Amino acid sequence: MQITIKETAKRLMENDNITILCHRSPDGDTMGSAYALYFILSSMGKTARVCCADPFVSDFVELLPVPNFGEIDEQYVVAVDVAVAELLGDYQAIYGDKVDLCIDHHISNSFYAKETLLDANASAAGVLIAELVPELGITLTKDIATCIYLACVTDTGCFRFSNTDARTLRLVATLLEAGVENGEINTAIFESKPKSRLLAENAATAAIKYYYDDHCAIMTITNALREEHNLQDADLEGIASLPRQIKGVWVGVTIREKGELCRVSLRTTKEVNATEICEQFGGGGHSRAAGCSINATPQETEKLLLTAIEKAINEVAKT
Amino acid sequence: MQITIKETAKRLMENDNITILCHRSPDGDTMGSAYALYFILSSMGKTARVCCADPFVSDFVELLPVPNFGEIDEQYVVAVDVAVAELLGDYQAIYGDKVDLCIDHHISNSFYAKETLLDANASAAGVLIAELVPELGITLTKDIATCIYLACVTDTGCFRFSNTDARTLRLVATLLEAGVENGEINTAIFESKPKSRLLAENAATAAIKYYYDDHCAIMTITNALREEHNLQDADLEGIASLPRQIKGVWVGVTIREKGELCRVSLRTTKEVNATEICEQFGGGGHSRAAGCSINATPQETEKLLLTAIEKAINEVAKT
Repeated sequence: MQITIKETAKRLMENDNITILCHRSPDGDTMGSAYALYFILSSMGKTARVCCADPFVSDFVELLPVPNFGEIDEQYVVAVDVAVAELLGDYQAIYGDKVDLCIDHHISNSFYAKETLLDANASAAGVLIAELVPELGITLTKDIATCIYLACVTDTGCFRFSNTDARTLRLVATLLEAGVENGEINTAIFESKPKSRLLAENAATAAIKYYYDDHCAIMTITNALREEHNLQDADLEGIASLPRQIKGVWVGVTIREKGELCRVSLRTTKEVNATEICEQFGGGGHSRAAGCSINATPQETEKLLLTAIEKAINEVAKT
Repeated sequence: MQITIKETAKRLMENDNITILCHRSPDGDTMGSAYALYFILSSMGKTARVCCADPFVSDFVELLPVPNFGEIDEQYVVAVDVAVAELLGDYQAIYGDKVDLCIDHHISNSFYAKETLLDANASAAGVLIAELVPELGITLTKDIATCIYLACVTDTGCFRFSNTDARTLRLVATLLEAGVENGEINTAIFESKPKSRLLAENAATAAIKYYYDDHCAIMTITNALREEHNLQDADLEGIASLPRQIKGVWVGVTIREKGELCRVSLRTTKEVNATEICEQFGGGGHSRAAGCSINATPQETEKLLLTAIEKAINEVAKT
C-alpha cells in the first residue's frame, strides 16, 4: 500500500528497534539513504542498524561517518532504494516478506513491503529521506547531510544526468549549508580511478575501430585482449559508455567476447535509435542504450552489426 | 569604483547601444554571461552586441541561442568576467581604458573599468548576471537561463568543484525551471571528447611510471612521444590533472619537454604540499597544484624531482 511522506514520518515516530535494509551490490543512494536514516533515528533516541547483503563500496565507507551498530531487538524493518524483494540478495530469505516500510524512487517498485513511500520523480531515494527531516522535526546535522549528499551525488552523476532537477538542487543547497564537504567528496568519487581501471580503459579504447566518417566507433574486448592486459570484470564495468563519448560518434558499440557468443552494448546519440538496431538481433533496451547477444565470433558479430548500423547512419545522413 | 548590484541594474536601465566584451580565450562563463546580458538587454528593448578577441568554443556556440548582432552606435561598454584589461586581448587597444562597467567574480580584478560590480564569492560571473534579472524586473526566459547555465556549469566543473555553493545551486534550480535542457548540455560539454584527445590521453597515460608504492605517478611527454602520436597542444590541455586522479597517488607529475628545458606540473592530495616541492626548483603555485621549469633532459628532470618527492612522501608515510 502506498503511503504519504507524513504517514511515513508517523510510522518512524511510532516504531523503535529498526533494521534498515539496502539493496545488494549497494550504490551510493541505497547506502547514503540507509545511513542518513540511521542518523535520523539515532537523533530521535531510537535504536537502529543498517544491513546489506554485499559489502559497501570502500570509497563510500571512507567518506561517510560509519557508526558501529549494536545488537537490536528488531521490531520494525525498513528497506531503502530497494525496488523488488530479490534485490535484498541473501537477506531476501529472512526479510523478503517482512519489510514493514519501503522508501523508494524506482517506478519498477513491486510493492513487496507492507507500506511503501514511492516517488518515481525523485532523483534519488535520498531525496525522500531528506524530505522526512522537517516532517520529523529534527535538525539536519552534518552527518545526516553528508549521507544524503552521497545518495544524491551518485544517482545524478554529480548533477550531470538529466534526472537532476530543481528539487534536488534546492535540497543539495541545504545540505551544503549543513556543512557537507562537497569538494572533497566529489574529488574522491568522480576524479579518482584505480590504476588497473586506467590500464583497462587504455587497452579497450586503443582497440576502437572507426567506421562511416567516424560516426560509428566499435570497441571489441576479446578474450585475447583480456588475457594480454590481465583485465578484470570490475575494471571493465561501465566501459560501454566510452565509444559514444567520442565527438562525432552517433553509434558507440562495445562487443565483449563471452565463451561462444558476444555480448553487445549500443550507445547512441539522439539521431539513432539503439533499440531498433538491437532488436534485429533479438535484443532490446532504450532508445539511446540497448544491447543484444550474438552467437558468433567477435569478427562476425562486428560484420553483422555494421550492416544494421550502416543503414541507420545513412538514414541520419539523408536528413 | 565598486558599485552594488542595484546600482549596476540602474546603469543598465539608463544606458543603451551597449557593447559587451568577453575575455580572450573565452570560456563558458565569459561567453554565457555576455550572451545572457545581451538577451536581458534585448528584452528591455535595448540594442547590444557581444565582442570577443578570440572565437568562441564551437561546442558552446552549438548549445546557445546565438543571435546576429546588428550595427550599433556604441554609447556604453560592459566587460563580463574580465579581471584585467590585458585579458581583452586585441580589444585592449580600443577598449582598455573605455570600459564603463565591469561585472566580475575574480578576486584579482584590477578595477580598470570606470565602475565595477565585483563579488569574489560568486562561483561564476554568470551568477551576478542572474542576480540582475529580478533587479531589472524582467522575465527569466529559456534563452537567458540557458546562457547563465553555461556560465555556471563550466566554472563549477558541472557542480563538482568546491566553489559549488548553495547560492549557485538555488540559482541553477530556477534556471532549470525556466526550461534549460541540462541533460543535453552536460552531455555535450562533459561527456564528449575528440578522437584526437582520446588518442593523446592514451599515449600520455600509457607513458606513466609509478614510484614509491604507487604514491607517485610521473607522466612524461617527450618530443619523441609527441611526434610518434602526432600530439597537438590542444589535445594535451589540462592533461596534467590525470596522474593525480589515479587512486592511491599522492603526487601526480607531468613533465613536458619544451626545447632545452622541461616544464613540470605537480598535482597532490592534501597530504603533500606541491609548492614546497616546486619551490626547490624555482617554481611555485598552490598547495595542491604547482609548477616549475627545469633546465635538463626529461630523464634528468625526473631524477631531480624524484629526490624531492621521495622526501615528501616519506614524511607522509611516517605520520
